Amino acid sequence: MKNDVFLKACRREPVPYTPVWLMRQAGRYMKEYMDIRAKHSFLDMCRTPEIACEVTLQPVRRLNVDAAIIFADILLPLEGMGIELEFAKNEGPVINNPIRGAADIDAVRVIEPENDVWYLLEAIRMVKKELSGAVPLIGFSGAPFTLASYIIEGGGSKNYIHTKGLMYGEPRLWHRLMEKITEITRRYLNAQIEAGAEAVQIFDSWAGCLGPDDYREFVLPYTKKAIEGVKKGVPVINFSTNTGTYLDIVKEAGGDVVGVDWRVRLDKAWQIIGHDKAIQGNLDPVALFGPLGEMEKRTKAILDMAGGRLGHIFNLGHGIIVGTPVENVKALVDMVHTLSARGS
Amino acid sequence: MKNDVFLKACRREPVPYTPVWLMRQAGRYMKEYMDIRAKHSFLDMCRTPEIACEVTLQPVRRLNVDAAIIFADILLPLEGMGIELEFAKNEGPVINNPIRGAADIDAVRVIEPENDVWYLLEAIRMVKKELSGAVPLIGFSGAPFTLASYIIEGGGSKNYIHTKGLMYGEPRLWHRLMEKITEITRRYLNAQIEAGAEAVQIFDSWAGCLGPDDYREFVLPYTKKAIEGVKKGVPVINFSTNTGTYLDIVKEAGGDVVGVDWRVRLDKAWQIIGHDKAIQGNLDPVALFGPLGEMEKRTKAILDMAGGRLGHIFNLGHGIIVGTPVENVKALVDMVHTLSARGS
Repeated sequence: MKNDVFLKACRREPVPYTPVWLMRQAGRYMKEYMDIRAKHSFLDMCRTPEIACEVTLQPVRRLNVDAAIIFADILLPLEGMGIELEFAKNEGPVINNPIRGAADIDAVRVIEPENDVWYLLEAIRMVKKELSGAVPLIGFSGAPFTLASYIIEGGGSKNYIHTKGLMYGEPRLWHRLMEKITEITRRYLNAQIEAGAEAVQIFDSWAGCLGPDDYREFVLPYTKKAIEGVKKGVPVINFSTNTGTYLDIVKEAGGDVVGVDWRVRLDKAWQIIGHDKAIQGNLDPVALFGPLGEMEKRTKAILDMAGGRLGHIFNLGHGIIVGTPVENVKALVDMVHTLSARGS
Repeated sequence: MKNDVFLKACRREPVPYTPVWLMRQAGRYMKEYMDIRAKHSFLDMCRTPEIACEVTLQPVRRLNVDAAIIFADILLPLEGMGIELEFAKNEGPVINNPIRGAADIDAVRVIEPENDVWYLLEAIRMVKKELSGAVPLIGFSGAPFTLASYIIEGGGSKNYIHTKGLMYGEPRLWHRLMEKITEITRRYLNAQIEAGAEAVQIFDSWAGCLGPDDYREFVLPYTKKAIEGVKKGVPVINFSTNTGTYLDIVKEAGGDVVGVDWRVRLDKAWQIIGHDKAIQGNLDPVALFGPLGEMEKRTKAILDMAGGRLGHIFNLGHGIIVGTPVENVKALVDMVHTLSARGS
């Protein structure tokens, strides 16, 4: 590995500078991505290894980030689970047969990644070959709760009425579904590792719709089990959004690194998570819209809050927003590297 | 005042039971509301005192809540500010001339409530007469930040790019706009008090898009000033959503009562806010969808966390959701009263 700064930071080993990668670093803010997207649907891009590989590499070439993350969608396992997924124009994911009752839950298939998401694994192998050790590759999965809420609601949701309805009204069914999804998550992540991913991130994008006691009872056991099921020695990043009011519980789910959004100060968050874990975050993605002086001030503030401790991975608090100027993204990566460089 | 339990709780005085009212207690979940809504646009309902009065009283009659809240929208001041507001079908508020630059900001009029929202003040006077002291009436306003973000974005927003753009890129303009809106908020609240409101709530619905340091620098001074500007002796409820990671800063804005959403445990929140303030909250609105046993368990848990201290006002962590069964809402109010009754 030519650049192992990211992996070292995951393990809280000494690094020459703070590594940085950005959630959604491959995406619609980048012209070379849009050129491909103009010719292919989003799902086709995910399902064509050559395209997924190319799109994964675009930000590595352009931005000088310290890690690649495989281009994929957290809903890719759904097809193998027997759930019909579409991306409706401008509406995001739509599921035509949402999971609502016992029969639906029993019908969910536990995927076999080499068959069901072969294209993702092939893309990982291709990326690895192309990177040839330049930077590490991150694999990822939705967390069990986020996957469950998608398939129960049938898409995005404002209030998660069906998800919480199952949780509150039929807790035994909830737990049965979560057991299945946890096993799917475990297999999905380990298959990516087997194919070559050197670290994995679990995204619990929707966990923040829950209060702390619900998270503890209905979510924590499964995220924990999924993380514990990841092949030993591979760093796991436990990322969730809008859970900053109960990071003390989120950290119980484990992971070598806890990712935090921008609603918490990094110093306070790290104190809660504990300095025996690494931390990832947490610039407000809107700061990337500039001005650059302001972005630099905020970047520096986050690095100062990390205080030079071992185990900080710089990232945004959420994914890059469509419309973000790519030159600002590049400037951010350079800023992090320069501002955090340790004197020799 | 026949039932002054709510006002006593605001002042942390002894009460025979925990008072309860519910955000959006007048709304689309209720048949008698929909019967009126079928014949009038939402804005027409707000602007017709007889209708606003009737709709305000509906939940008081039906639910046995301990306070009425005037039926209105936080965007009603906009017309007087010179901003064109429409409610597009199923799309929520749309503003045709959003406020983006210096000239826009200078053109914002500081409203004169007796002229600009006369219908709201008239509705308050009518409600007061109808209630004839049965329960107190709450007036309300959007907080300066939430109003600013609406008029800058031109409606709802996912990422608040324009709002943060002004804040980060043109901080002097930001502060100039916030000064104006703060004065509008102050006048708007005091006019409602003058017309008869016995307490007021400030809703900072969108503050949670900000990190703690941004809230402190760009929002806190104005919410604080707006609250300090409210006529002395009238209880102020300082409510914001998704700010649970920095309640320590939110409480600095003041208010006799701090309202919290369901992402924090009430006991932990109260500790942060300080027991010298009252607290309002914080049942997850989705719990109202039932089952009733589960709703009761959660209601009891919140009352237990309040621990019988003086100054708890029961409420949801956010507004009642469309589709909520009205009989469950009624059951919740009864539950709170029964479960919290102090032995004589």
